[in-house]
Amino acid sequence: MRRIKITLDYIGTAYSGWQRQPNLDTVQSRVEAAVKSLTGESVSVQASGRTDAGVHALGQVAHFDTVGDIPVKNFMTGLNHFLPPDIRILSSEEVSPDFHSRFSAHEKTYRYVLYESGFDRAVYLNRAVRVGGRLNIEAMRECAAVFVGRHDFTSYMSTGADTTTTERTVKSLSVLRRGDLVEIEITADGFLYNMVRLISGTLVKAGQGRITVAEAKSLLEKADKDAVREVMPACGLYLVSVDYGAIKK
Amino acid sequence: MRRIKITLDYIGTAYSGWQRQPNLDTVQSRVEAAVKSLTGESVSVQASGRTDAGVHALGQVAHFDTVGDIPVKNFMTGLNHFLPPDIRILSSEEVSPDFHSRFSAHEKTYRYVLYESGFDRAVYLNRAVRVGGRLNIEAMRECAAVFVGRHDFTSYMSTGADTTTTERTVKSLSVLRRGDLVEIEITADGFLYNMVRLISGTLVKAGQGRITVAEAKSLLEKADKDAVREVMPACGLYLVSVDYGAIKK
Repeated sequence: MRRIKITLDYIGTAYSGWQRQPNLDTVQSRVEAAVKSLTGESVSVQASGRTDAGVHALGQVAHFDTVGDIPVKNFMTGLNHFLPPDIRILSSEEVSPDFHSRFSAHEKTYRYVLYESGFDRAVYLNRAVRVGGRLNIEAMRECAAVFVGRHDFTSYMSTGADTTTTERTVKSLSVLRRGDLVEIEITADGFLYNMVRLISGTLVKAGQGRITVAEAKSLLEKADKDAVREVMPACGLYLVSVDYGAIKK
Repeated sequence: MRRIKITLDYIGTAYSGWQRQPNLDTVQSRVEAAVKSLTGESVSVQASGRTDAGVHALGQVAHFDTVGDIPVKNFMTGLNHFLPPDIRILSSEEVSPDFHSRFSAHEKTYRYVLYESGFDRAVYLNRAVRVGGRLNIEAMRECAAVFVGRHDFTSYMSTGADTTTTERTVKSLSVLRRGDLVEIEITADGFLYNMVRLISGTLVKAGQGRITVAEAKSLLEKADKDAVREVMPACGLYLVSVDYGAIKK
């Protein structure tokens, strides 16, 4: 039995998220079907975390076990042969059987991508989310500082996912103007359900002058799951990378 | 009779190019159908130039005539109502009847977008073209200088389009690394068929050390339509903008 770690990217637009669900087309079911086609084995492919319908990944990480003897590097090209072009395996490697894509993760990075425009642009369809008017990046950065560090993020969580603790450590939260786009990038040791999309909503409000730093701080400290309701659309969200520190081979 | 100028963007992936063709889904036929739905008029919508199947536009310009009295600003929102989300009207304005989207154009700018990777990435599917290995940007810029100025571009033209003259003036040709991407941007007073995709192919070869500046210069001077054959894929090409100088209202 060997454990295989894969890194993959996908455009989530066509899929009902990562997680396998009956009668829905999901990224997990596509990858599991590709493993089945390649190895003949029916495996469960476990990801670092679920992504919702329409959410993209630049560097999702997943693992599965195989009893076959396919050279590990061949999983990348072999699985890509059976996957649609909007899901691509970027690398495959053999890892220790105690590696787990979810439980071994030290931190994850997400990016939320916005464009400023009074009207929709085709070029950003399903890739970035429109905000009217020009965002005040400095105000967004000042607000972002509220979230950095260890906090109870109950106010920035949607219900509907199991979680044992609501404390997370945000290691960095940056706001960057890059060409036409405004990118919010957040690294944390873990994320509650919809945490990035809720924090991004508050940062957008800060950039529009609709919320003060003190108000954002107060909302966070409230630790009330009904405190913040603006869940930004899925299509602006990208899982950028998952970090495992040094992985045992 | 009023002449309406529209600026639009589109993702060309789903369309058989700009130009109306029997039984094919094209951007022109979509825009003409939207005008018909909005005004009841069957018009011909003329663009600054055709774009091929799979080519995108960030700022295509087109015009049509209307006898109705819809306020000009309403064409933008009205047409968008009838267009699919991968085609968006970005502005509408009334122009002089002697304005012509194609013949009045002073210059146009195209961008060709590449990413460097040993393997395909889903995130760039249909948006950018993969090149293996790292490109030498300085070598690409040195090669680009060969094309700037007034030249006979016969060597950088595919047959299949009518043209009376093969001379064009390239006003600028830049190569820029932007994040993961390498962008070639070219502004000229006009373009021959496939000229951007052929020049981009030569610049990629220059960036890979597979052609020298002297060889590129010699190919250009040959003015032989069979001299250059590497037509880069359509999906990396974007019509960025069309410039008309000062437009008579």
